[in-house]
Amino acid sequence: MSDFEAPDQSQLETFPNPRPGRDFTIEIICPEFTSLCPKTGHPDFGTITFRYIPGDVCIELKSLKLYLQRFRNVGSFYEAVTNRLMDDFVAVVAPRKVEIIGSFTPRGGISTNVTIKHEAAQ
Amino acid sequence: MSDFEAPDQSQLETFPNPRPGRDFTIEIICPEFTSLCPKTGHPDFGTITFRYIPGDVCIELKSLKLYLQRFRNVGSFYEAVTNRLMDDFVAVVAPRKVEIIGSFTPRGGISTNVTIKHEAAQ
Amino acid sequence: MSDFEAPDQSQLETFPNPRPGRDFTIEIICPEFTSLCPKTGHPDFGTITFRYIPGDVCIELKSLKLYLQRFRNVGSFYEAVTNRLMDDFVAVVAPRKVEIIGSFTPRGGISTNVTIKHEAAQ
Amino acid sequence: MSDFEAPDQSQLETFPNPRPGRDFTIEIICPEFTSLCPKTGHPDFGTITFRYIPGDVCIELKSLKLYLQRFRNVGSFYEAVTNRLMDDFVAVVAPRKVEIIGSFTPRGGISTNVTIKHEAAQ
Amino acid sequence: MSDFEAPDQSQLETFPNPRPGRDFTIEIICPEFTSLCPKTGHPDFGTITFRYIPGDVCIELKSLKLYLQRFRNVGSFYEAVTNRLMDDFVAVVAPRKVEIIGSFTPRGGISTNVTIKHEAAQ
Amino acid sequence: MSDFEAPDQSQLETFPNPRPGRDFTIEIICPEFTSLCPKTGHPDFGTITFRYIPGDVCIELKSLKLYLQRFRNVGSFYEAVTNRLMDDFVAVVAPRKVEIIGSFTPRGGISTNVTIKHEAAQ
Amino acid sequence: MSDFEAPDQSQLETFPNPRPGRDFTIEIICPEFTSLCPKTGHPDFGTITFRYIPGDVCIELKSLKLYLQRFRNVGSFYEAVTNRLMDDFVAVVAPRKVEIIGSFTPRGGISTNVTIKHEAAQ
Amino acid sequence: MSDFEAPDQSQLETFPNPRPGRDFTIEIICPEFTSLCPKTGHPDFGTITFRYIPGDVCIELKSLKLYLQRFRNVGSFYEAVTNRLMDDFVAVVAPRKVEIIGSFTPRGGISTNVTIKHEAAQ
Amino acid sequence: MSDFEAPDQSQLETFPNPRPGRDFTIEIICPEFTSLCPKTGHPDFGTITFRYIPGDVCIELKSLKLYLQRFRNVGSFYEAVTNRLMDDFVAVVAPRKVEIIGSFTPRGGISTNVTIKHEAAQ
Amino acid sequence: MSDFEAPDQSQLETFPNPRPGRDFTIEIICPEFTSLCPKTGHPDFGTITFRYIPGDVCIELKSLKLYLQRFRNVGSFYEAVTNRLMDDFVAVVAPRKVEIIGSFTPRGGISTNVTIKHEAAQ
Repeated sequence: MSDFEAPDQSQLETFPNPRPGRDFTIEIICPEFTSLCPKTGHPDFGTITFRYIPGDVCIELKSLKLYLQRFRNVGSFYEAVTNRLMDDFVAVVAPRKVEIIGSFTPRGGISTNVTIKHEAAQ
Repeated sequence: MSDFEAPDQSQLETFPNPRPGRDFTIEIICPEFTSLCPKTGHPDFGTITFRYIPGDVCIELKSLKLYLQRFRNVGSFYEAVTNRLMDDFVAVVAPRKVEIIGSFTPRGGISTNVTIKHEAAQ
Repeated sequence: MSDFEAPDQSQLETFPNPRPGRDFTIEIICPEFTSLCPKTGHPDFGTITFRYIPGDVCIELKSLKLYLQRFRNVGSFYEAVTNRLMDDFVAVVAPRKVEIIGSFTPRGGISTNVTIKHEAAQ
Repeated sequence: MSDFEAPDQSQLETFPNPRPGRDFTIEIICPEFTSLCPKTGHPDFGTITFRYIPGDVCIELKSLKLYLQRFRNVGSFYEAVTNRLMDDFVAVVAPRKVEIIGSFTPRGGISTNVTIKHEAAQ
Repeated sequence: MSDFEAPDQSQLETFPNPRPGRDFTIEIICPEFTSLCPKTGHPDFGTITFRYIPGDVCIELKSLKLYLQRFRNVGSFYEAVTNRLMDDFVAVVAPRKVEIIGSFTPRGGISTNVTIKHEAAQ
Repeated sequence: MSDFEAPDQSQLETFPNPRPGRDFTIEIICPEFTSLCPKTGHPDFGTITFRYIPGDVCIELKSLKLYLQRFRNVGSFYEAVTNRLMDDFVAVVAPRKVEIIGSFTPRGGISTNVTIKHEAAQ
Repeated sequence: MSDFEAPDQSQLETFPNPRPGRDFTIEIICPEFTSLCPKTGHPDFGTITFRYIPGDVCIELKSLKLYLQRFRNVGSFYEAVTNRLMDDFVAVVAPRKVEIIGSFTPRGGISTNVTIKHEAAQ
Repeated sequence: MSDFEAPDQSQLETFPNPRPGRDFTIEIICPEFTSLCPKTGHPDFGTITFRYIPGDVCIELKSLKLYLQRFRNVGSFYEAVTNRLMDDFVAVVAPRKVEIIGSFTPRGGISTNVTIKHEAAQ
Repeated sequence: MSDFEAPDQSQLETFPNPRPGRDFTIEIICPEFTSLCPKTGHPDFGTITFRYIPGDVCIELKSLKLYLQRFRNVGSFYEAVTNRLMDDFVAVVAPRKVEIIGSFTPRGGISTNVTIKHEAAQ
Repeated sequence: MSDFEAPDQSQLETFPNPRPGRDFTIEIICPEFTSLCPKTGHPDFGTITFRYIPGDVCIELKSLKLYLQRFRNVGSFYEAVTNRLMDDFVAVVAPRKVEIIGSFTPRGGISTNVTIKHEAAQ
């Protein structure tokens, strides 16, 4: 059953922002993220949080879930995968402001959180 | 017994602000909100928080409770229903400042919080 | 959209117990139960927990979820609804042992938990 | 034994601020506040927090406790009673800055917090 | 508004046990109990928990709430009031088994819990 | 990188029990278990706990970790996978007593815990 | 102001047990116990819990508080002081059953709990 | 053993700040502070927190501990003792910035926190 | 400074049990245990809890602390080190009953608790 | 096995920052830090947190772990060791901004947190 395809930003779907002019934040918490360590091949686990002020569109939740599932058998470092998530999110959703946080479970007794912020050019 | 009428802002009642000139915040936490997912028809559950600085009037709590109950059999997306609550609240209460937060329980392992702010034109 | 049908034990589906001879407990926690107070018509909210040792069959989770959803617009007292859940569960699943706990949110500052146990005649 | 007298600001006693020129905050947390709902006559319960920067005087704690006890059999809405506490406190203590928070336990599944701030004219 | 009448077991109402033969526990948690210290006249606060296996009848919740409210202006020691609650409960409800716990907030830095059990003669 | 082989009990390694005659319990908590739902193909997540009194041998932790990782792309129901873990564990470790608990994260608002106990024939 | 007298069991006062025949437990939690380490002279801090089924009498709380305060400047090891508390309690209160727990805060990174049980000869 | 001497700022020892030019905060949390109420003679208990940016010197921890112990049998009000701690600390340590928080356990159901800030003249 | 000597049971000191005939439990919690993994040389960390009913003697706390510190640079598996602690404790203290729990922090996402019980022959 | 070499900043390895121009924070939490008190020789324990915005390079986690392990048998005061960590980190990683927090477990009932901030010259 392991035929997850490679994740691709084309999987992310959007819908029109119902109130584009309002001060309006959407926070989406995904505690079931898993990918593979590119060095050891062992699974990594973490929680990915998206917090954004939408521009013209909002992310569609089910497409986000399916997109994140595809990282399951992908090898990627914490910093790289969190930046990849930001690149894909910005390309598709073009939010006015967005913060993405990757909180990864301990490895060797050490836990790591990566926080990336992006703001649209005005 | 399922004869809840459609929610309508005319149900919301108010009473005069006892100290209109003061810096004064009222926070109302409603952890028993439920509506229906318009796609699947399955129930959604969440906590709605209203935090506002009243203008001339304050919201009457019992009318707010009855108004929120009427969403029980209404189909609405998270973003839409939270914005609807803001529109109705602002229309009836005309607060100097208001923040409404909808925190919805996990679906597909993903939980969502929608935060909307509004400030009266000065 | 309020056309939830009346709950009926015929909705509950089962599948064969994979290890009937083993000491084996299944706990199912359903924190999104809601029904109506038969006196006031106001919604009640609670968590229903099923903890059972299966006999020949196990409960199928999706059918349990759909069955519980149908109480949404049904008026019933705490004690009555928890006993009703037990009657239906025993009739369909015939577990060797079962405990059902209904934990209801506060009303008038008072919260109520109803715990029912049942053991099959040997 | 129910002969609590009506609360009155004359009950509040003060003592001189030991360091009037310093940046100095006193927080007093009173989790055992109770009064009556003026509509239903049922008891309300809450925590009252006073957080202030004293001017010339500080509030004497025992007198504050006795003053608060006298609300026991008084009927008053949340907003009204919190504003009354502020009026009395400011009249007697004349603090440079004060914040009073009334956090009331759930009624009908809804809990309410009232936060009032006051700053002395400079 | 302080005209609470004296508490009396005649206020407690019951309804028939829906399943007298079943192993069936009802737990009722009342965190808003208050009475007066008979020595000092100061208010006491506590949580009263009733946990019982009904015999022929169950306690009606609203009548229990109103009965407990009447202790508001009654002077009574912790041990005495918890035993009084047991006496009244047993006289009216005649449960097969009952446990009543009074958990009182700290006085002089010391907190007290009183637990009483009663079982019907067989 | 998705070439996880199928899990097989031959992967589980053991080492001799250092004190076979003692009353001695080993608890191993594995919060990073994931497999696939055989119906939907979506990932499931859970914590697997092994609690056992060793007989002649103890489980080697690293081999247990690698064995559990191989369920990553395997489709299996909660009850089936937990029983499978028990079968493999008993076959290889032959403990005097063992309890295995699978605690799975919510799906459709419902979370499930499966607890299996096994005792060696004396 | 350091003139605390030596603690003595004669300070402990009692009152008659209101229901001597009942199954009845009183738990008294005293989190503000302090004495001195007899080796170093440094203060020790702990919580003393008394849990007992009264015989003919109950302990009077205020006298217990004053008795415990007198250990403030007394040097005593954990085991000795907890046993001393038991000896004095049994001598004065003669409970049917009693458990005393001394939970002391960490010293050198190590915390200690001493639990003593006593049952009256039948 | 009750021969604690009176506290005096001369007991506080310091050592040179290892990096005087850096933005550098030291937080010291002392949860075992006790003194006496000057009115009643009963013990008070609290946690004292020092949070400071050192100037030329840092406080030596053992001397701070011994200094705080000497308040054990001293009678002092909350506001007075916290201000006294600030005066002594500033006189000896001369920090660039310091905040001292005294958090005292409940008396009569009311708990009190005193927060004092001080900044060196530039 | 790394000259910790090898741990040896001769370091453990005792003192006479003050009440040999009483039902009396001493629990000692040591959250700062560290040793080395014999395979990788990496440090392991855990909490060691001793819970025992003393026979003729009690363990002296400071000698226990120094004894435990000496494991700092010793390589030992979880099961081996916990059994070693039991052997040494029983040899020196000869308790009537003892339970030792080693709770070790996660390695590779897996945490382990080892619980050993011992009872003196009667 | 106690042959840990002295810690040296040359052990710290880096890798290129994947997005040097972005607002990007990495937080690394290391709860298993231990060193020795230079006065007493007893072990100290703490959690070290690094929170930084990378410049041209990021810290490699495994090298950080091995570097921190080498403090195991080094004697150093809290303030000195936290400043040493900052010096080494800045020398090797040259972050745009960095905050290092050392949170040390209680000694003599007092716990200490050292927070150091550093910002690169612009």
